[in-house]
Amino acid sequence: MRVLGIDPGSAVTGFGVVDRAGSIVRHRAHGTLRPERGAPLAARLGMLLEGLSEVIEAHAPEVVVIERVFVSASPRSALVLGQARGVAMASAASRGIPVVEYAASQIKQAVVGTGAATKPQVQAMVKTLLELPKAPAQDAADALAAAICHAHAGRLSRLLAEGEAPTVRGGRGRGRRGGCGYVVRRAR
Amino acid sequence: MRVLGIDPGSAVTGFGVVDRAGSIVRHRAHGTLRPERGAPLAARLGMLLEGLSEVIEAHAPEVVVIERVFVSASPRSALVLGQARGVAMASAASRGIPVVEYAASQIKQAVVGTGAATKPQVQAMVKTLLELPKAPAQDAADALAAAICHAHAGRLSRLLAEGEAPTVRGGRGRGRRGGCGYVVRRAR
Repeated sequence: MRVLGIDPGSAVTGFGVVDRAGSIVRHRAHGTLRPERGAPLAARLGMLLEGLSEVIEAHAPEVVVIERVFVSASPRSALVLGQARGVAMASAASRGIPVVEYAASQIKQAVVGTGAATKPQVQAMVKTLLELPKAPAQDAADALAAAICHAHAGRLSRLLAEGEAPTVRGGRGRGRRGGCGYVVRRAR
Repeated sequence: MRVLGIDPGSAVTGFGVVDRAGSIVRHRAHGTLRPERGAPLAARLGMLLEGLSEVIEAHAPEVVVIERVFVSASPRSALVLGQARGVAMASAASRGIPVVEYAASQIKQAVVGTGAATKPQVQAMVKTLLELPKAPAQDAADALAAAICHAHAGRLSRLLAEGEAPTVRGGRGRGRRGGCGYVVRRAR
């Protein structure tokens, strides 16, 4: 299963691609899209659509994961975020790729073990879980975390059926349940 | 000059295409896109992107016009509107088509003669100005109004240079200045 996580933003959009084979989650790609800063809004959204389309075509994900938004900010910032988010969702859905949403707290819980994890904690755990040489930039790390969250989402029921204890490996080395109703296991 | 107006919405998106040749603005097409009501959000945004892409490919507009948003609603509705709006802007901009924004009051002023015009007034004036057999549905009428607003936007300076008095024809039959810094003139 190949999963693309997207962390959309008006200035920077992060993306991350992981492959899951059985209990192994492997890093495939990640990066950030930064539409030209001074360009008009529509042009930046157009660049975002093109950039995400290239990522989708290059990696052919089976599913796209995006953070669910619980709006608490101002209407202005909700509009701005909505614009980037709409482009991200449409870029996948227009190709027939399903889009799955998780709350930020679920993603953090899944990757770090606590829904209140900080951004640097997410970056560090993504680096560890995917055995990357260095921690990805914040937006790309958030996108990879979303992808990891979903990549494992179906595992808990399978493990329970097999009688295997759901534990988390990697990270702090202690068994922990993930937050997406599944188990985080480090790729080996 | 061919102008595509888009009135994006989460449930219904209106579009309208007009051609301007000299002082004449002619109706070319209009309609509404209604992504499947029960479908997930991402799927609906994907359908919207596909639908608008078809409209753009069918009519090849030189410019796309969209209503500027002054957010006064809740963050939740701003997010929802932003998602549809982002898709609309990106669908044009990713093809290199410039996107122009006007305030709703400018568009109403341009088409009806008052920035406080009601929706039915806009529908009626769009019907009159474009000599349509019947008034378009609300969202399509708003999109056509935006397109008409821009189609005339460059005219005032030209008319003043030619010494022609800027007046409005059609509608209530009185000369009026439009709200987009130009003159509304009925196509003949």
